[in-house]
Amino acid sequence: MPYEFKLTRRVEFAETDMAGIVHFSNYFRMMEAAEHAFFRSLGFSIHGHANGTTTGWPRVSASCDYRAPLRFEEEVEIHLLVAEVRSRSIRYQFIFRKGPDGVEVARGQVAAVCATVDKTTGKLAPVQIPESIRALISAAPPELLPS
Amino acid sequence: MPYEFKLTRRVEFAETDMAGIVHFSNYFRMMEAAEHAFFRSLGFSIHGHANGTTTGWPRVSASCDYRAPLRFEEEVEIHLLVAEVRSRSIRYQFIFRKGPDGVEVARGQVAAVCATVDKTTGKLAPVQIPESIRALISAAPPELLPS
Amino acid sequence: MPYEFKLTRRVEFAETDMAGIVHFSNYFRMMEAAEHAFFRSLGFSIHGHANGTTTGWPRVSASCDYRAPLRFEEEVEIHLLVAEVRSRSIRYQFIFRKGPDGVEVARGQVAAVCATVDKTTGKLAPVQIPESIRALISAAPPELLPS
Amino acid sequence: MPYEFKLTRRVEFAETDMAGIVHFSNYFRMMEAAEHAFFRSLGFSIHGHANGTTTGWPRVSASCDYRAPLRFEEEVEIHLLVAEVRSRSIRYQFIFRKGPDGVEVARGQVAAVCATVDKTTGKLAPVQIPESIRALISAAPPELLPS
Repeated sequence: MPYEFKLTRRVEFAETDMAGIVHFSNYFRMMEAAEHAFFRSLGFSIHGHANGTTTGWPRVSASCDYRAPLRFEEEVEIHLLVAEVRSRSIRYQFIFRKGPDGVEVARGQVAAVCATVDKTTGKLAPVQIPESIRALISAAPPELLPS
Repeated sequence: MPYEFKLTRRVEFAETDMAGIVHFSNYFRMMEAAEHAFFRSLGFSIHGHANGTTTGWPRVSASCDYRAPLRFEEEVEIHLLVAEVRSRSIRYQFIFRKGPDGVEVARGQVAAVCATVDKTTGKLAPVQIPESIRALISAAPPELLPS
Repeated sequence: MPYEFKLTRRVEFAETDMAGIVHFSNYFRMMEAAEHAFFRSLGFSIHGHANGTTTGWPRVSASCDYRAPLRFEEEVEIHLLVAEVRSRSIRYQFIFRKGPDGVEVARGQVAAVCATVDKTTGKLAPVQIPESIRALISAAPPELLPS
Repeated sequence: MPYEFKLTRRVEFAETDMAGIVHFSNYFRMMEAAEHAFFRSLGFSIHGHANGTTTGWPRVSASCDYRAPLRFEEEVEIHLLVAEVRSRSIRYQFIFRKGPDGVEVARGQVAAVCATVDKTTGKLAPVQIPESIRALISAAPPELLPS
């Protein structure tokens, strides 16, 4: 079962800041983009509507360690690894690499909980991950996860 | 009746780009922030829920002319002027000024249409501006509008 | 000589707003991304360093007309057309289309001036477009430009 | 010596996403805004130029735990606490609260290293925190720090 995914992006001008490097908050957007592309690769969307219910994946926690800067027009590979699948949440780890030698730029982590969105109030309520999704995702072997 | 509003902001680091100035797309966010603060000053929200209906103001058009750069930590005044009030839409003009002499940094324009959002499909449908809002907003005298 | 370019992107979650559609400011980021990809396709970067000088393309003006909303995960084609090449500036037009029928979502315009960036003061000074760049870019035939 | 700072902001439309809540990446921008306002309150800027040298504070790590959503137009208080001051780096903790009862929305952490930026190459090199800054900042008493 799939437990990893790689997304490659080129740094855009609007992602940089006056220090000339990608703003640190944008690594979290890249992690999310990789997570969503991973979901699409499995055939479904992270933001689903079914039977009048909207399901989403609000974040419980997110973190990133920065090791080298990313600059405009550099290509970065975002390597997603599923670290843990629980009944209501999934935890991902990410390694960012750039260049021909795959220099590690950053590594991050995101935990997201499966939740339904009440259309009237906008309230989020955690729910069991649908079996159709759980059946498609497994945790990566521990030896593959960044320590 | 109110036809203008001034909002002052300090440029944040994340709004700059590698050229060391505020990214041009962020002027549109500042215009919108001024528009929403203008609405709040009148006692209502730009994104309203009433009688099971969600009302919003999707943009029809937006433009900006850039005259001088804005840099990190500079204070900018966003001067909103109501240029036109129609049955279903409002057009605003904006002048951005900075510094003790009020140097003009940019001027912009946004036209927004009043619309309801269908909660099931997410479709937007233009509607008449509610009388409670129209009664509070008028167009600025032509001589005050930037040409 | 090249006068157009097409870039295709998929809408990301972070580009949407609470109205469920791509925030209007992000169309300007997409236009810029297309402009930069156009430059790369010609073999150079929009943000160049040469002979100790940094050259950039600060924006003079930008505008966008919105015709239909763009939603999460939709694929959008950004069609760049060079509208005018002057000695110090270039004006681009953009048409955004989505879906199998190429429904027009928006059209926009950006004018950018070639400028050098003073490394000490950060001041921008307009300069002639380098001949190496001018030689590669021409205006599109008028009949191709959106009216 | 100062070891804490409080910044209050109102959530802007462009900070929300299609789930109707503040996008999780924007909490990192709010932490940074509080950090910079803290520096300004001490009389200097986070991004300084002196003696031909540019000093900045690139991030080493950042994390956030999300406990409740933040919605459009809600006021949020970002409470910065200095958790640790080392020779070349500072670590901050943040608590986000909203509403009259100060409901905790999130808590986060950022570690930043003092660095000089080479103007020609853009390279960042860690340096000792200038004494003028160190003399003004101290770590908060441990009992004040979120565990």
